[in-house]
Amino acid sequence: MEHQSSELIFRRLGIHSQQEHFVYMREDCHVCSSEGFEALTRIRVNYKSRSIIASLNIIRTDILNPGEISLSESAIHSLGIRDGETLRVSHLHPIQSLSHVRSKIYGNKFSADELDEIITDIVDGNYSSIHLSAFITACAGHRLDTKEIISLTKAMISSGQQIHWNKDIIVDKHCIGGLPGNRTTPIVVSILTAFGLTMPKTSSRAITSPAGTADTMEVMTRVTLNMDEIKKVVEQENGCIVWGGTAQLSPADDILIRVEKALDIDSEGQLIASVLSKKASAGSNHVIIDMPIGETAKLRSIDSANKLKSEIEKVADVVGLKLKVLITDGTQPVGKGIGPVLEARDILSVLRNEKTAPQDLKERSLMLSAELLELSGKVAVGLGMTQAKLILESGKAYQKFVAICEAQGEFKEPQIKGHKRVISAGNSGKVIRIDNRKLAKVAKLAGAPFNKNSGIDFFSPIGKDVMKGQALYEIYAESKGSLEYALEYLHSQQDILTIQNH
Amino acid sequence: MEHQSSELIFRRLGIHSQQEHFVYMREDCHVCSSEGFEALTRIRVNYKSRSIIASLNIIRTDILNPGEISLSESAIHSLGIRDGETLRVSHLHPIQSLSHVRSKIYGNKFSADELDEIITDIVDGNYSSIHLSAFITACAGHRLDTKEIISLTKAMISSGQQIHWNKDIIVDKHCIGGLPGNRTTPIVVSILTAFGLTMPKTSSRAITSPAGTADTMEVMTRVTLNMDEIKKVVEQENGCIVWGGTAQLSPADDILIRVEKALDIDSEGQLIASVLSKKASAGSNHVIIDMPIGETAKLRSIDSANKLKSEIEKVADVVGLKLKVLITDGTQPVGKGIGPVLEARDILSVLRNEKTAPQDLKERSLMLSAELLELSGKVAVGLGMTQAKLILESGKAYQKFVAICEAQGEFKEPQIKGHKRVISAGNSGKVIRIDNRKLAKVAKLAGAPFNKNSGIDFFSPIGKDVMKGQALYEIYAESKGSLEYALEYLHSQQDILTIQNH
Repeated sequence: MEHQSSELIFRRLGIHSQQEHFVYMREDCHVCSSEGFEALTRIRVNYKSRSIIASLNIIRTDILNPGEISLSESAIHSLGIRDGETLRVSHLHPIQSLSHVRSKIYGNKFSADELDEIITDIVDGNYSSIHLSAFITACAGHRLDTKEIISLTKAMISSGQQIHWNKDIIVDKHCIGGLPGNRTTPIVVSILTAFGLTMPKTSSRAITSPAGTADTMEVMTRVTLNMDEIKKVVEQENGCIVWGGTAQLSPADDILIRVEKALDIDSEGQLIASVLSKKASAGSNHVIIDMPIGETAKLRSIDSANKLKSEIEKVADVVGLKLKVLITDGTQPVGKGIGPVLEARDILSVLRNEKTAPQDLKERSLMLSAELLELSGKVAVGLGMTQAKLILESGKAYQKFVAICEAQGEFKEPQIKGHKRVISAGNSGKVIRIDNRKLAKVAKLAGAPFNKNSGIDFFSPIGKDVMKGQALYEIYAESKGSLEYALEYLHSQQDILTIQNH
Repeated sequence: MEHQSSELIFRRLGIHSQQEHFVYMREDCHVCSSEGFEALTRIRVNYKSRSIIASLNIIRTDILNPGEISLSESAIHSLGIRDGETLRVSHLHPIQSLSHVRSKIYGNKFSADELDEIITDIVDGNYSSIHLSAFITACAGHRLDTKEIISLTKAMISSGQQIHWNKDIIVDKHCIGGLPGNRTTPIVVSILTAFGLTMPKTSSRAITSPAGTADTMEVMTRVTLNMDEIKKVVEQENGCIVWGGTAQLSPADDILIRVEKALDIDSEGQLIASVLSKKASAGSNHVIIDMPIGETAKLRSIDSANKLKSEIEKVADVVGLKLKVLITDGTQPVGKGIGPVLEARDILSVLRNEKTAPQDLKERSLMLSAELLELSGKVAVGLGMTQAKLILESGKAYQKFVAICEAQGEFKEPQIKGHKRVISAGNSGKVIRIDNRKLAKVAKLAGAPFNKNSGIDFFSPIGKDVMKGQALYEIYAESKGSLEYALEYLHSQQDILTIQNH
C-alpha cells in the first residue's frame, strides 16, 4: 500500500554525509515510484518557508516507519527541523545555472553573470557532488582565462560576508599547498602586530592534511570566536589568529575545496579565486603568498610556479590586493613537529628564542615577516629582516603572541602525550629525498588533527647521515588503534624517506 | 572512549544509495578520527577475501551500537555479507587510473591501456560519483577523438560479457534519445524474426524516461531470463525481447549512464562507445540506428545529427559492426501511449492490424524493419518495405510476437486501469509545438515505468486543430498521490503543448 501524501513526518537517523544533503524515504512512498529508483535523483524538500535540494536514498527496512522521512545532518541543520515535524517533498525543477556549466564544457567562455549564478547555487547547496565535480573539471587544466578567473573571484567574494576594518593597511599571508610543519603564521602574526601593523588572521582547519593553523592554535587558545569577539581582539592587540568559519567568508570556496581534494586535481583558476576571494573577503589588502616548490609539494616545478605567480599577481591587482609571491623550498618538512601539539611546541620554542628551536621554521618566519613588513610600506626595502629579527629576538613577538591568546580567551601550555613509535633507518646512508605527501599522510592516519596529540616528530632532514637502526622520526598517536592504522599504511610504502647508501 | 579495532560487526540498516557504495561508521570509531570528518573520504572495506571501496558516512545516534558498522545495499550485495559477520576497514591507497583522468583534463590524449584501466576500475566500483563525473566531463564536448572513442568502445566491450551466437547474421536496432511512445522494437523484432533473420534483442529498463522496452514488454511477458533461457528462446524463435541486465553486457555503460543523465550532458564519444559496446557485446553485427531530431529531442539539429552519424559509422566499422543510421522526425511523440501498459496496447494494436492502430508507430516500425532487412543483405535494396508490410499485414508478425512471448514464459493481455485525468486545451487553435521532454516527465511523475499502468494517452499531434476545453491528452496514474505529483509539475509548466490561436 503506497503512502499517498507528499507530506511526511521527520525523524532524525543521525547520518552525517558531509556536505551533500541526503533525504531518506521508504521504498513504499509514492514519491519514490514517481521519482524513480534508477536515476541519481534529487528532490526538493520543503519545511515551512524553507526549502533545500537533497539526493534521494531509499530505505528498505523499518528504521523508518510508514509515513516517516529522514535527512542527513547537514540537511537538518539547513532546515532547522525537529523530530515529529512535517516535511513536504516536491519535484525538483532544473537548476538553471547548470546550463552555464554545460556551455563551458562545450567550449564557451563563462560570463560574469553566469559565474555569479553558479556560485550562488553552490552556496545555496543546490549542486550535488556530481555537479560540483563537473564544474571543477570544466574549469581545470587552464580552461579559465584571466577574465574568467577575475569573474570567479568576484563571484566568490560576493557569495559570502566581507569584513571591513577601519585601518588603511591590513596585512595577511597565505601558503599555497601544505608543507608539513610549515606553521609560520602564528610567528608572523606576532611579529607584524608587535610592530604595529594590523593582521586579523582567519585560518582554516585541515581538510586532508595533519593540521591547519586553526587546529594548531586551538592547542594553546580559543579559536572559535564570533565576529564581535574577533573585532574586539583586533582592536586591542592589532591582530588575532582564529578559525575563519564563523565569519562566512567565501562559503563557495569551502564547498568546492572538498571536492577538489577528493579529485586531487589542479585547477589554477580555482586556486587563485579560492585564495584571493578569502583574502579580499577578510578585508586584507597587503598579502604575502608563500609558494613552496618541490617534487612532492603542490607546485612541482619553477615553471609552473612562475606561471601561477604571474596569473595571481594580475588577478590580485584587479581585485584591489597588493600582493607579493615568494617562491620557497618545498622539498622537505619545516620544523620538527607535524600535527597540532607538536607544531605548537615548535612555535613557542621559536618565539621564546630557545636554543633548540627549529632554525628552518625560525628563518622562514623571519623571511616572510620581513617581506610583509616591506610590502606594507611601513618598513623600507632592505630593512625588513633587521626589524623582524629585532622583534623576535627581543622577546616582543612572544609577549604579543601570549597577549593575543589571552585576548582570545586563554593561553595554555601544550602538553605532549600519547602512544609513540620510533621509525628507524633500514640502511645506513644519507637522506636524499623526503616524500612530503606520504609523511603527512602517516601523521594524519595517526589521528591528526582530530586528535591533537597525534602526529610526527621529525628529525631527519635532507643531507643528514644516518646509521642503520637510527631513529628517523617518531609517530605520536592518541590511541593504539590509530597508531596501528598509521603503521599499516607506513609499512606498505617504500619511499617515505629515501636513504642512499654511501 | 574510541573503538580501537579496525574490525567491526556488520548490521544492515537497509539504505539503498543507488550505485555508489557507502559505509556507515559511528563517530567514536578511531577510523573516523584517522580518516577525518572533513574530506569526502573513501575507505577500503574488507570481508573475507573480498574488498570494496566505499564513501564514509558517519553515524551520530545509536542506530548503530559501539563496535558496529553498516553498508549501503549495493555494497552489501557486492560483498555478500550478512548481519553479525565481521568486516575490516583499511586506508584506501590512491586509485592509479585516476591519474589518467587527470592527465586527460590537463590536455593529453588517452591511450588504449589507460582507458582499459579506467573502465576496469569503474566496473569494480572504485570510482565515486565525483570521479565518474570528472571522467565524463573530461570526455565531453568533443574532447575524445576517433581513436580514443574506438579505444573506449573496446575497453567497454572487454569490461563485461560477450554473447556469441552460432549464426552469421545477427540483426539489431537502437534509438538514440528517447522519443515518447516510440516503441518500435517489439514490432521490428517480430517482423525480422518472422522473416527468418536472428534478432536476439536485449533492452534496458528506463532510467529517466517513462518506459524502456524491457518495462513495456514486462506488461505482456517475462523479461528477466538468464543466459541459458535466452539462448533457448532464440534457438526456438530466431529472437527474443528481454531485459539485458542478466547478460552483464558493457557494465561500465550502466554505471556511466546514470551519472551522464544526472549531469544531462552530451558526450558524443561516450554516446558512441555506449551504443556500440552494448551492440558488440550482444553479438550483433548488423545494426540500424534510429536518430530522431527535433528541438526537444536529444539531437537538436541536422548538423549535429550528421556529425554523430559520421563518427558512429567510422567507429562501428572498426569494431566490426555493419551499421546504418536513419535520421527521423523527433518533434513529437510516436503512437498514442506513453508508459508501459499504454505502449503495450499500441504495439498489439499495430501487430493485430487494427483500424485504430496508431499509423505513425506502424509506419516507423515498417521503415526500420525494411532498412534492417536490406542491411542484412537478405532482401534486395528497394524491396524491404514490401517484404516488411507483407509480414505485418498478413498477421505473421503478430503470430511471431505471441510465440516469442510464450517461449519467454507467457503472453498476457495488457489491462488498462488506474486514476485518470484529462488535460484540456486552454485556448482554441492549432497544435504547433510539443515539448517531448516535459510530456515524458509528466508521464514519469505519474509513476511510469515503476507503476506500469501510469503514463499518458496522447492524441494531439502537431497540426491538429483544437477547441478551447477540448481534451488534449489523458494522464493515467496507479495512485492518487502520483497523479497529484504529476499535476503539480504540469501546472507549473506553460508550454508542454503550444497551441497557436488562429
